[in-house]
Amino acid sequence: MKLSIVVIGDELLLGRVTDTNSGFIARHFDALGWEIASVETVGDNKEAITSAITRAMEHSSLVITTGGLGPTKDDITKGVMTEIFGGEPVKNVEVLDNIINVFNLRGLTMNPLTAAQAIVPSSCRVIQNRLGTAPIMVFERDECMLIAMPGVPFETEGMLVEAVIPEVMARFQPDTAISHRTVIVTGITESALAKHLEEFEMSLAPGFHLAYLPTPGFIRLRLDGTGSDAYTVDSLTCKYAERLKQTLGNLMLYDGDGTPAEIVIGGLRHNRLTMATAESCTGGNIAHKITEIAGCSDSYIGSVVSYSNEVKATLLGVSQDDLEQHGAVSREVVEQMAVGVCRATGADCSVATSGIAGPDGGTPEKPVGTVWTAVCIKGHTTSRLLKLPGNRDRVIERATNEVLIDLAKKLLR
Amino acid sequence: MKLSIVVIGDELLLGRVTDTNSGFIARHFDALGWEIASVETVGDNKEAITSAITRAMEHSSLVITTGGLGPTKDDITKGVMTEIFGGEPVKNVEVLDNIINVFNLRGLTMNPLTAAQAIVPSSCRVIQNRLGTAPIMVFERDECMLIAMPGVPFETEGMLVEAVIPEVMARFQPDTAISHRTVIVTGITESALAKHLEEFEMSLAPGFHLAYLPTPGFIRLRLDGTGSDAYTVDSLTCKYAERLKQTLGNLMLYDGDGTPAEIVIGGLRHNRLTMATAESCTGGNIAHKITEIAGCSDSYIGSVVSYSNEVKATLLGVSQDDLEQHGAVSREVVEQMAVGVCRATGADCSVATSGIAGPDGGTPEKPVGTVWTAVCIKGHTTSRLLKLPGNRDRVIERATNEVLIDLAKKLLR
Repeated sequence: MKLSIVVIGDELLLGRVTDTNSGFIARHFDALGWEIASVETVGDNKEAITSAITRAMEHSSLVITTGGLGPTKDDITKGVMTEIFGGEPVKNVEVLDNIINVFNLRGLTMNPLTAAQAIVPSSCRVIQNRLGTAPIMVFERDECMLIAMPGVPFETEGMLVEAVIPEVMARFQPDTAISHRTVIVTGITESALAKHLEEFEMSLAPGFHLAYLPTPGFIRLRLDGTGSDAYTVDSLTCKYAERLKQTLGNLMLYDGDGTPAEIVIGGLRHNRLTMATAESCTGGNIAHKITEIAGCSDSYIGSVVSYSNEVKATLLGVSQDDLEQHGAVSREVVEQMAVGVCRATGADCSVATSGIAGPDGGTPEKPVGTVWTAVCIKGHTTSRLLKLPGNRDRVIERATNEVLIDLAKKLLR
Repeated sequence: MKLSIVVIGDELLLGRVTDTNSGFIARHFDALGWEIASVETVGDNKEAITSAITRAMEHSSLVITTGGLGPTKDDITKGVMTEIFGGEPVKNVEVLDNIINVFNLRGLTMNPLTAAQAIVPSSCRVIQNRLGTAPIMVFERDECMLIAMPGVPFETEGMLVEAVIPEVMARFQPDTAISHRTVIVTGITESALAKHLEEFEMSLAPGFHLAYLPTPGFIRLRLDGTGSDAYTVDSLTCKYAERLKQTLGNLMLYDGDGTPAEIVIGGLRHNRLTMATAESCTGGNIAHKITEIAGCSDSYIGSVVSYSNEVKATLLGVSQDDLEQHGAVSREVVEQMAVGVCRATGADCSVATSGIAGPDGGTPEKPVGTVWTAVCIKGHTTSRLLKLPGNRDRVIERATNEVLIDLAKKLLR
C-alpha cells in the first residue's frame, strides 16, 4: 500500500525551517511495510495545496499532510479540505475543550484567533490533539484516507505514534511482509565497500536490496527484504545478514543501528565503565550528542568545554609549557586534556578534541580542519591527527563522530 | 521566475536522512527574488525521478536536482537525464582528473566504481565539483535549465554558492524586486501576537506580507515585500519596518535575524563581556549552539557540563549540603552553578541549567520538564523555573533557547 506525504508551509518551502516531520512519518510507515510514494512540500497557497493533495490521492491509499493548521491568517489548509471533501465549517465542542485545557496547562489565556482552531469541516472526523491546539482531521473519499496533522514536530511525532498509526492500522491490512537489518561499517570508502560487496549483492534474491547510508566517519549498511510471505522474508533476511557479517569481517563495527554516541553508550554499559569529555573545537557537541540519549547518566559524568587556554590549564591541568611550546592544537595538549578530564571528574574513560574548525584561525602548518583527538581508557591514552575537509559545521560534526567511533572501536572490538 | 527542486534518494524518501539541501537552495534563491514553486522528494526509482523532473520542468524556468549521483549501484539519475535530454554516456577527462585529485588529497586510492563517476551524458555541460567526486551537470531544453547537483550537503552547499548561483545569474535576469526584514519577538504567544498586529497587517500594500515563524522560546517575524520596482519595494519595506517596530514596542527583542546564540554573542560584543556556561540537563547543547558561531572565541570561554552531582560540587563549587537538601534541580543549585562557572573560568557572565529532561527521573513534585535556569552577570544572579512540555529533545532545546533569550534580554534591553 502506498503513502504520500504533503508538507504545507511557506517557511518550509522557502527553507527557513527544516522539515523533519515527513522523515519521521516515512520512517514509521516504511517499517510497517508501506511504500512511500512521494513527499511534496508546498507553500501556504490554495492552488498548490489543492493540486498536491489531489495528485497524492490519485496514487495513494493514504495521504498525510502536516502543517497549515496554525491560528495565524496564512494558514488556509482547512478551507482547501472543505473544497475537496465537501461539508461546511462547524464548531467542534471537544476541540474547543481541548484548546482551553492546553491553554490552562500552560497558564495562558485563550483569544479569538485560537478559538477559531475549534472550527473544522463537517466532512471530517476529529482525533483530539493531546499535545497542542490544532485538531487532527481524518477525511475519507473512495478508497483513500487523508489525515491532516499539525506542523509542530513535537505534536506531529507524539500524535502519530499515539493515535494516527493505530487509526491507520485499524483501517488497512498490510499486503507485504517486510524485514530490515542494519550494521555499522567503518574504515572504508563507500565505493570500496560497494566493490567489496559486489558478489554478495549479486547473490540477493528478488525483493532484497542493500542500501548504503554514508555518514561522516562511518557507513550504515541496511539490508531490506520484502515479499508476500513473512516467514520466507524473515528467514532469508537472517541468512543474508549472517553472510553479510562474514563478508564484512573486521569492517563491521556494530551489529545493529545507532548513532556513534549510542554505540559508545552501548559499549560503556557492556564494559561497566563511565566516561567524560574534554572538548575544545567540538565545543560541547560531543556532550550534546551523548546527553541526547535518555538514561545516559548511568555512564556519562560530564564535560569540560575548554574553549580558552586558561580553562585547559586550570580545569584540565594541561601544562602551560606545552600550551606555549606546541600550541593548543597538538598531540601533547589533547592527550593531557583526555587524562585531565578523567582526573577532574573521576570517569574511567574520556575523549578529547582540539582543533581548528574555521573559517578563521588556520595557518600553513595547521590549516582549518586540523583536529587532534584523544581517547583515554583507564589511564591508557591514544591520539590521532585528523585533517578534515569542509566548513565549520562539518569539521565539528566529523571530529565528533570520528572520536566517538575511535572510543567505540576500543570498547567493542 | 520559478524554481523547482527535486530531491533524489531512497534514504531521504524513507526518512533515514533528513534533507537539508532543498532548504539551503530555497533560502538562497528566495533571497535572490525567485519564486520557489515546489520541492519534491523521490526515491532511487526511474519512473518517479522521470515524472518529478518532467512535471517540475513544465512549470519552472529552473530545476535543481540533488542526489542520485553517487558511485553505488542504486544511483540511476544519470540514466534518467540521458533519456530526458538525449545524448549518450561519454567519459569526461576533466571530471576524471578532478576525481583523482580529490582522492589524492584524501590519501585514498580510486577504484573502478568511482572512475565511473567521470562518465556523463554528452548532452550536458559539466561544472567541476571542487568538493567531491560527483560532477555537477547542466542541461538546457527550450526555456528551461536543469542543474543536477550531488547529494552530500557539504558539496551541495559549497558548490551552490561558488558556482551554481553565478551560473544561474548569468543566464536569467530577475523580473521581481524583493525585500525582507526580520525582527525577533519574545514574551507573547503566536495567536496573541497576530491579534496585536491585526491592524498593522491589514494596512500593508499588495505584495507585502508578514510571516510568523515561531520557535520554542521566541517568534521570528518576517516582513516580505515584492513588486516590479526595486526603489518602491525598498522604501515601503523601510516604512513598514519602522511602523512594525513601533507597534511591537518592548515585545521586540532584536532588530534583525539570528539564533538565540547569535543574539547573545551580539550582546556580549556590544557590552565587551565574556561568558561561560554551566549545564546539567542541557548537556552541552548551549555550548554547542554558541560554538557553532564562527569567531565566538572572543566572547566565549568554555563550559562545565556537570551531569553528575560530584562534578557540580568539585568543578563548580556547589554546596554538598544544598545538593542534598534541595536536590540538583533547585534554585539554590542552579544559581551556585552560574556563579561557580564564572569563578572557575574567569568569565564576566554565565548561564546555567539544571532540570529533568526525561523520559525518566520525574517525580510528582518535579515532573519531567521541570528546569531551573540561571543567568549571572558580573556576580548578579537571577533564576527562573521553567515547566516545559514535550519529550527529551524538546525540553533540552527549549531550555537552551529560554536561558539564552534571558541573557540576551539583560544584555540588550
